[in-house]
Amino acid sequence: MPAIPLRPIGVFDSGLGGLTVVRQLRRLLPHEEILYLGDLAHLPYGTKSTDEIRRRSEECARFLLKKGTKALVIACNSASSVASKVLSEKLPIPVLNVITPAVEEALASTRNFRIGVIATYATIASGSYTKALQARCPEAEYFLEACPLFVPLAEEGWLEDAIAFGTARRYLGPMKKKNIDTLILGCTHYPLLEKVIGKVMGKKVRLIDSAVPTALKLKALLASHGILYPRPRRAALKIFVTDFVRNFLRIGESFLGERLKNAQLVEVA
Amino acid sequence: MPAIPLRPIGVFDSGLGGLTVVRQLRRLLPHEEILYLGDLAHLPYGTKSTDEIRRRSEECARFLLKKGTKALVIACNSASSVASKVLSEKLPIPVLNVITPAVEEALASTRNFRIGVIATYATIASGSYTKALQARCPEAEYFLEACPLFVPLAEEGWLEDAIAFGTARRYLGPMKKKNIDTLILGCTHYPLLEKVIGKVMGKKVRLIDSAVPTALKLKALLASHGILYPRPRRAALKIFVTDFVRNFLRIGESFLGERLKNAQLVEVA
Repeated sequence: MPAIPLRPIGVFDSGLGGLTVVRQLRRLLPHEEILYLGDLAHLPYGTKSTDEIRRRSEECARFLLKKGTKALVIACNSASSVASKVLSEKLPIPVLNVITPAVEEALASTRNFRIGVIATYATIASGSYTKALQARCPEAEYFLEACPLFVPLAEEGWLEDAIAFGTARRYLGPMKKKNIDTLILGCTHYPLLEKVIGKVMGKKVRLIDSAVPTALKLKALLASHGILYPRPRRAALKIFVTDFVRNFLRIGESFLGERLKNAQLVEVA
Repeated sequence: MPAIPLRPIGVFDSGLGGLTVVRQLRRLLPHEEILYLGDLAHLPYGTKSTDEIRRRSEECARFLLKKGTKALVIACNSASSVASKVLSEKLPIPVLNVITPAVEEALASTRNFRIGVIATYATIASGSYTKALQARCPEAEYFLEACPLFVPLAEEGWLEDAIAFGTARRYLGPMKKKNIDTLILGCTHYPLLEKVIGKVMGKKVRLIDSAVPTALKLKALLASHGILYPRPRRAALKIFVTDFVRNFLRIGESFLGERLKNAQLVEVA
């Protein structure tokens, strides 16, 4: 019998948003140990230049690699946009971003081939969703919209009030007129606003939270490499952060969906 | 006749918000050359730890000092909160923050000695407004409120719509019941929302934009040191940034109130 692979999965993000990805990893791969690195000293990545985001992503990846991770998930759309390719080339382990699984899921799901994407300005400006979608299905029509206020709304916990609805209506109004049937939530904060987004868009539009297809894709990838942890257990989750932020526990736990224990402050050059 | 002091005034902030301070410096000290450093690669300071904000502030101050500045304005409330004292002690030039002038102006202005302060979470948590106010007038009553959504609203340019009003009403509702007559805008982004804040608070409440008393205090300080530029001229403004952000020009110009030319990308360790 071969040895059981004990190495953990590494996940990083600029902040706490990536914990919505960890939440689905914990649900769909409960036996895998997870190391999460939140680069809070340098958040948000969304407003940084491409070079700066790449530099930070490499530092985060190196930190997790030193801790023995067997696979890396870039749980940040800004970093997925601009650093995924370079990390895949440089690192000796499988690297997943959150964009490709969401795009594949959206194309598998759509019936009228009219797909929307909402994300930060940086993610949209990077063109990575458009490129990834058009490379797979140039015939479909795509509609993109930046929704920068959704991040502070998620962090304030203003998830279902008049301001959240007003903001969602303002951002999604143009999108609603496009008759899309699938909408990608292209920012890890946005799943917290799923309810208002769903109400504004209506029941006929399916929302894609990239965390779910990302977790399923990772599971398949680990299995194909023979490095899936094969025994039932409730595996550990270790949280590292490069700084703390206000309301760290409240925000972190609302994103993660479980208690956030023992977050450890670390330096990542 | 003594030589004319040619050295510029240095101003720094984590982002572009400090340009609302530069706007008033340009208005009230039009003959002074100004160097502005926006540490955009590390914004926002508001979510960073005290140590991290101090480290960044020292780097910014050193950069401006090397360029020959004769006086330094910390045009960022988070940095003013935690780095003003240490910079005053370490640097060989006069250092002004934006908190002290606002506090002095509020106390000079109030008649009922009930003063409100709105700011980011970090600035309020630092306690610097409370300390500065209570040190000067322990008998007055002070009311503080964090308004984190005001920053993205200012940057989106959503300054007078239903969402801006709804957000202002939600944040300022408790403050309005306190019967204050003076409200300090404790974040450099907030002057852009002066109209909605004013409408929500009512005409009897005077809003203090710290940029104005800061500019007046700097003028008096330069005069007392004999380093005020004594001749009429339209002096230069030089902008340095450590990174660019989305909508750099639109946001920068709306804060500065004039064309934003020749911003230069620099590295600040």
